[in-house]
Amino acid sequence: MKNLHIVKIGGHIIDDKDALDNFLDAYSQLEGGKLLVHGGGKLASSWSKKLGLPVNMHKGRRITDASAIELITMVYAGLNKQITAQLQARGCTALGLSGADLNCIPANKRVHPNIDFGFVGDLSLETLNVELLVKLIEQMVVPVFCALSHDGNGQLLNTNADTIAATLAKAFSSYFHCQLWYCFEKKGVLTDIADEESWLSTLNKKDFDEMVKNEKIHDGMYPKLENAFSALNEGVQEVALKHADNLLDANGTYLKK
Amino acid sequence: MKNLHIVKIGGHIIDDKDALDNFLDAYSQLEGGKLLVHGGGKLASSWSKKLGLPVNMHKGRRITDASAIELITMVYAGLNKQITAQLQARGCTALGLSGADLNCIPANKRVHPNIDFGFVGDLSLETLNVELLVKLIEQMVVPVFCALSHDGNGQLLNTNADTIAATLAKAFSSYFHCQLWYCFEKKGVLTDIADEESWLSTLNKKDFDEMVKNEKIHDGMYPKLENAFSALNEGVQEVALKHADNLLDANGTYLKK
Repeated sequence: MKNLHIVKIGGHIIDDKDALDNFLDAYSQLEGGKLLVHGGGKLASSWSKKLGLPVNMHKGRRITDASAIELITMVYAGLNKQITAQLQARGCTALGLSGADLNCIPANKRVHPNIDFGFVGDLSLETLNVELLVKLIEQMVVPVFCALSHDGNGQLLNTNADTIAATLAKAFSSYFHCQLWYCFEKKGVLTDIADEESWLSTLNKKDFDEMVKNEKIHDGMYPKLENAFSALNEGVQEVALKHADNLLDANGTYLKK
Repeated sequence: MKNLHIVKIGGHIIDDKDALDNFLDAYSQLEGGKLLVHGGGKLASSWSKKLGLPVNMHKGRRITDASAIELITMVYAGLNKQITAQLQARGCTALGLSGADLNCIPANKRVHPNIDFGFVGDLSLETLNVELLVKLIEQMVVPVFCALSHDGNGQLLNTNADTIAATLAKAFSSYFHCQLWYCFEKKGVLTDIADEESWLSTLNKKDFDEMVKNEKIHDGMYPKLENAFSALNEGVQEVALKHADNLLDANGTYLKK
C-alpha cells in the first residue's frame, strides 16, 4: 500500500509569507503521495474588513451569509490558486480544488435548532467521491483543497478545513497508507499552555479525555483533536499534530487509540 | 475521433445571472467532450471599484500590477468555483482550473518595448501540458478554465480568455475533433454594426481581411477574430462565433480558411 501524506495548514502559516515559503519548500520534499488542505479564515476576515463587511462569529464558528460566502469563495479559491502556482514552482504537479470540483465533497447545509450558520457545510464520509483523485494521486498529482464543499444544487458551502482533512483521510485510508498531519504553530499538544516545550510525543484517547475533564485542552484545540481522533478511529493509519517546521522530522504529537 | 466542444464565454453572460443560468442549462446538454473557458474582466473592474483600486487600461488591455493580479486571482478563481458548482448541479463532472493547475498553461510574462503591462501572460502552444486533461475528458470530466496562466516560478499571470481558448483548442485538436465556439452577445460577425440581424453564416480569411481594410470590424472584435482564424489555421477542426442563446443550434458565423 502506497503512502499518502495528507497535510493540513492553517492561518498562522498562510498569513506569513516566509512561513508559507518554508512550509512549501519542506512539503515539496515529502516522498510518496501528497495532498494538502488549507484554511484561510483570517485572510477572509482581513478582506471583510477592507470591504467594510461585518464578521459574525458564534463560539469561534463563522456565520456565513450570502455576501460572506461570496467573499470567502473568492479569498479561499484565490489563495488556493496561489499555493498551486507556488507548488508548481517546486516541482509538484499541484491541482487546486474545492469540494465542488469533480464532485469530490458534497455536503449538507448545516441545520441548527437555534443558530442560522448560513452557507456552512457539514460532511459525511459516505458521500465523498475520491476515485478520480486516487487515480490522479497515483500519477503523482498533488490535490490542494481549500475549505469549500458544495450542496449539489449549485451552492458552495464554507467548511471547516480540519474536518475536510479528517474526512478525506478516512476516505483515502482504503486506498493508501495515510499519514494525516495537522500543522500548526505549536510543536504538538502541550500539557502546559504556558510552556512551548511541554509537548507530548504521543497522546491516547483516554489521556485526551482526562485532559479535557481537567480543562487542560485549549478551546481551539478541542475540535481539532476531536477531528484527529475521529480519523484515527475510522481507519486513518497515522494521525499527528506537528509544528510546520517539523514536517520532515518525527517531532510532534502522534495520536494513539 | 471523439468530439470536444471548447466554448468560451465572456463578460456579458457572466454579469447577468439569468443569462449565465440559461447558458449553463444549454451547455450541460451539449453531447460529447466539453471544456469551458470564461473571462471575468468586468467583474474584476467592479471589485476594483468597491475596493477603491484604480483600473488601468492601455488600448483595451488591462495593466496588471501586484495588487491587481492579487484581486484578479481572487475574482477569477472565485467565479470559476461558482461556475463549477453550478455545472455539478446540472450533472457535469466539472473541474475548475487555472493555467497553474496540473501545469496546464505555462506562460511568459509579457515583454513590451514601451508599456509595462505587469503580470500579464503570453502563451505558446509548445509549452501547454494537456495529456492529463485528455485522459480526464475521456472520462467525461469537464475542465473549466479561468483566464490565468502562470510563469512556472510561482507567479500567476492575467491572460486573455480568447487566447487561452484558441491555444487550448490547437493543443486538443491532435486528440479530438474540436469545435471552438466563441459565445458572445451578438448572433455572429455583423456586416453592419447597427443591424443585429446582419450576421454572416460563414466568413473566410480573405473576406475578413477585406472587412478589416474597410474598417468594418469593430475594435473589440478584431483580436477575437484574429484568435479564431489562428485556431482554424493551426488545426482546429471547427471555429465559430455564436450568440450564447444559439449554443444548441447551427446559427452563428462559422469561419472558413
